[in-house]
Amino acid sequence: MRVEVRFSGFGGQGIVTAGIILGRAASLYEGKHAVQTQSYGPEARGGASRSEVVISDSEILYPKVTKPDVFVVMSGEALQRYLKDVRKGCRVIYDSSLIRTPPSKGMPYAVPATLMAKKHLGRTIVANIILLGALSAITGVVGMEALEKAVLDTVPKGTEELNLRALKLGYEAGAEAVQGGGE
Amino acid sequence: MRVEVRFSGFGGQGIVTAGIILGRAASLYEGKHAVQTQSYGPEARGGASRSEVVISDSEILYPKVTKPDVFVVMSGEALQRYLKDVRKGCRVIYDSSLIRTPPSKGMPYAVPATLMAKKHLGRTIVANIILLGALSAITGVVGMEALEKAVLDTVPKGTEELNLRALKLGYEAGAEAVQGGGE
Repeated sequence: MRVEVRFSGFGGQGIVTAGIILGRAASLYEGKHAVQTQSYGPEARGGASRSEVVISDSEILYPKVTKPDVFVVMSGEALQRYLKDVRKGCRVIYDSSLIRTPPSKGMPYAVPATLMAKKHLGRTIVANIILLGALSAITGVVGMEALEKAVLDTVPKGTEELNLRALKLGYEAGAEAVQGGGE
Repeated sequence: MRVEVRFSGFGGQGIVTAGIILGRAASLYEGKHAVQTQSYGPEARGGASRSEVVISDSEILYPKVTKPDVFVVMSGEALQRYLKDVRKGCRVIYDSSLIRTPPSKGMPYAVPATLMAKKHLGRTIVANIILLGALSAITGVVGMEALEKAVLDTVPKGTEELNLRALKLGYEAGAEAVQGGGE
């Protein structure tokens, strides 16, 4: 069983951090193999950010994500850029406070992460963590306990409580999005 | 021109951060393509940490590091684990305050990063940044200006000055290690 996850958005949204936390959660706390990758091409100089995680029960020989099973997307530009890679069964979890038009391919799940972060936690910076919680509820790729531990490993000291709250909020929003049957 | 860099040590030494900073420096600030990877296998649960960066003038189709050109190593255990991948011309930059026996393969460069961090900056946590500065002086893979910008992008607010000092110290130590002809 191999699962490919792609995160994309713009610089400063914590795309790289989200990938690192997911990779750590799956490997250190759920005993899987994981490879987590950042690729920087010419688009990175335009402020785009991309981070990928491959999770598997066995050793990962090919670490590239070509057709993601899960696509977490935080900007309209990133959605346009990677829409070509979205296959029929791909779960597309999109920040609906930043992306107004739902993805035209895959299985879309709207989570207004940036708005939720601002409204409930007063800090838009944790929108990425909200989306990780949503990912857990929507895909089951990784459990919340493992995510919580990986969040605690990764976030700056003093922000643990804020990030755990974001994770939980995101899980609830993800569970709601699933109830709603995606869109 | 493709350059493969591997960082390895144990968790908490900032191995992942070092890889991210190098990838950003080369791509965002020197116009190269870069892929930065973390692989987590069973060894990660023992506390081992590994991070890799491939830098190239053209698109990177194969992101795995198999025979690194540069190997930055921060624990004796990591050195033993990856010594098999060290080919003749590989520059091995090792934290000589933690690794007492110089590497038996490749071209070794001793930089007592953890000791330097403690003695000159009062914080062992920046040993990884010292090694990045040394890498710049020893390999020329990336310039100091690009590294400085990438450090500023990446490190927590309030630690910028400390990290820039670590980078500079590392560069000087690397230049000294080169003068000494490696070991």
